Amino acid sequence: MKMADYKPRHFNWRVEGTVAVMSLDRPERKNPMTFESYAEMRDTFRQLSYADDIKAVVIASNGGNFCSGGDVHDIIGPLLDKDMKGLLEFTRMTGDLVKAMNAAPQPIISAVDGVCVGAGAMIALFSDMRIGTPAAKTAFLFTRVGLAGCDMGACAMLPRVIGQGRAAELLYTGRVMSADEAERWGFFNRLTDGAQLEAEALKLAQQLVAGPTFAHMMTKTMLAQEWSMSLPMAIESEAQAQAICMQTRDFRRAYDAFVAKGKPVFAGD
Amino acid sequence: MKMADYKPRHFNWRVEGTVAVMSLDRPERKNPMTFESYAEMRDTFRQLSYADDIKAVVIASNGGNFCSGGDVHDIIGPLLDKDMKGLLEFTRMTGDLVKAMNAAPQPIISAVDGVCVGAGAMIALFSDMRIGTPAAKTAFLFTRVGLAGCDMGACAMLPRVIGQGRAAELLYTGRVMSADEAERWGFFNRLTDGAQLEAEALKLAQQLVAGPTFAHMMTKTMLAQEWSMSLPMAIESEAQAQAICMQTRDFRRAYDAFVAKGKPVFAGD
Amino acid sequence: MKMADYKPRHFNWRVEGTVAVMSLDRPERKNPMTFESYAEMRDTFRQLSYADDIKAVVIASNGGNFCSGGDVHDIIGPLLDKDMKGLLEFTRMTGDLVKAMNAAPQPIISAVDGVCVGAGAMIALFSDMRIGTPAAKTAFLFTRVGLAGCDMGACAMLPRVIGQGRAAELLYTGRVMSADEAERWGFFNRLTDGAQLEAEALKLAQQLVAGPTFAHMMTKTMLAQEWSMSLPMAIESEAQAQAICMQTRDFRRAYDAFVAKGKPVFAGD
Repeated sequence: MKMADYKPRHFNWRVEGTVAVMSLDRPERKNPMTFESYAEMRDTFRQLSYADDIKAVVIASNGGNFCSGGDVHDIIGPLLDKDMKGLLEFTRMTGDLVKAMNAAPQPIISAVDGVCVGAGAMIALFSDMRIGTPAAKTAFLFTRVGLAGCDMGACAMLPRVIGQGRAAELLYTGRVMSADEAERWGFFNRLTDGAQLEAEALKLAQQLVAGPTFAHMMTKTMLAQEWSMSLPMAIESEAQAQAICMQTRDFRRAYDAFVAKGKPVFAGD
Repeated sequence: MKMADYKPRHFNWRVEGTVAVMSLDRPERKNPMTFESYAEMRDTFRQLSYADDIKAVVIASNGGNFCSGGDVHDIIGPLLDKDMKGLLEFTRMTGDLVKAMNAAPQPIISAVDGVCVGAGAMIALFSDMRIGTPAAKTAFLFTRVGLAGCDMGACAMLPRVIGQGRAAELLYTGRVMSADEAERWGFFNRLTDGAQLEAEALKLAQQLVAGPTFAHMMTKTMLAQEWSMSLPMAIESEAQAQAICMQTRDFRRAYDAFVAKGKPVFAGD
Repeated sequence: MKMADYKPRHFNWRVEGTVAVMSLDRPERKNPMTFESYAEMRDTFRQLSYADDIKAVVIASNGGNFCSGGDVHDIIGPLLDKDMKGLLEFTRMTGDLVKAMNAAPQPIISAVDGVCVGAGAMIALFSDMRIGTPAAKTAFLFTRVGLAGCDMGACAMLPRVIGQGRAAELLYTGRVMSADEAERWGFFNRLTDGAQLEAEALKLAQQLVAGPTFAHMMTKTMLAQEWSMSLPMAIESEAQAQAICMQTRDFRRAYDAFVAKGKPVFAGD
């Protein structure tokens, strides 16, 4: 199956070249998540592992907002009637979404405008890069609904992005991280104007897909798993991973272009 | 036992609502640690695991200083006469203090003014959040007394808070980290005026204890242990931890308040 | 063997007191690496484990540049003719260089001016501290030559120094990190003028070698290995490591000097 032909039911999807651009599709409510969109996004990122026609993913904002997280009526209400088996099915489904994002071979860029909270903040956090706007308001607000900050891997990934002390404050208080803080702390790679946001994210994605995409896949794999290796183990793992990449044709293409004083045209193999 | 009635001998202790406020009690010497205060603080944080009446802890400054660390005369002198068994008893006791802080279910907020060095800097570091003043001078000065930077978990926690390169400089040189650096690097969550310091820390603590304190306990547990998990393991652990929190009444209280367009009153169960 | 008498063939080496100052020696080409300089640097750092006369290492720039990484003609060309066995021999050799840097007991300070890219950026990254100049241009540009960002431990160490989000951008795009970004993000400990760079790095090294060098060795060991320990394991490991340091004479020297209101003269034992 070509993902260019993909027609998800619960979010927007389009393909530009080899970049998939997706966004949640209820802008009038700031794009909340539902049981259905969680499941379909999880399945989509799992499918992306086998999709040869997509080399990067942009998760865009829609109507000036990124995502308002799990909907209070559609999600929290029903959860209150579930037993432990049902609750764990739900928390594992949401966890499986970020696991699938992390395991997909494509670099993921979130383009964050306006509201970016709860599960929405987690989707941004488990993206590989994030571009924000000055209006972006990011909050890990689980505590506001009576829950813990440990949701969908937040206590693992947020400290690795912005440091343990800042992560603790955001997770205990649920307060908004301003766009300025997010840029200063390394959550956003940079800020841009809201009108340019999607174009900037797409441009970055296009730059990546013009690069050695097999190698990008390996970079993503190693960025995800080296946190739980000792340094000597990590260095040996990279020796193996890079030796694999040295057998790709892209490595030769770069060399040939250099010798010919030209620009390499990579093909991802 | 209610910790509100607690009368420690080697530091100050008072309880405001469900917040314990403690501070070292030798301001004329900038609040050094002694064998006795190490042991009593360790025992206190261990007891806090079973204290249902305390939901957050503030470690305050006293007389314009936080803590000057292990006293040269009271601690370093006697250590020179100890054999390896005695030395290891001491270093394990100091390590047990920060282990107990980390294992206590209450979020800990350090309010740091003036001198914050040696073991004092470690107590601040193993707090969950830190508010400083422009006069705060933090130094991991073990190297100045002929010792290594690896004391009470410094080489584990400091890089996770401020990054490996900055941590290395502070631990090799023992130099002072200025208040401005500490805020820029994520050691202090924010700076405030010395006159407001304790009130600001208490206000933050009161905000936390008005929240879902069972869930905060879970956040603290996961922030501590996910550093040594792989990302998929961490995400599964959070699925379990959050499913547990979804069975608390606080989760229902938040929903009911939302539906009633009111503010939830959490009870920590 | 005294490393003061050491005469490497493929880089510059001099010893000032107990500080070794090394630099790559092809400034007319911005100091590229070759198979020979990789191997000789690896062997040198391995030998430093047994060198009692060297207590710190400065890796200096030369002719206004730090290092341009693996040479395209000398390294990349020949790699294209190697089979997997040969490729893995190469990637393990480059990994062994940073492993050896990490395992050497001496703190390493990189003094980075101008070009600092590829393997050069990795040598700077695996140094314990880094001083830069406003002209420093650091790039992990493996992606530009068709390879992955996971080279010589980059995916392990760069996120630990500057955070996961910033590391991802630099490793996926290969773009230059400016000197200003590098200082803001914690890659450079500070910036200094190009004319003062080597003197500043040497001064910092001399400050370290005037300190308790046995203890510095222990700090370095623990900074390297505590990333893959749980916090309680790390705290116990530090209790043991610091108890060892408390049996050094430097610990007594510091105490005696303090009592005599003098400055300690450390001897590294």
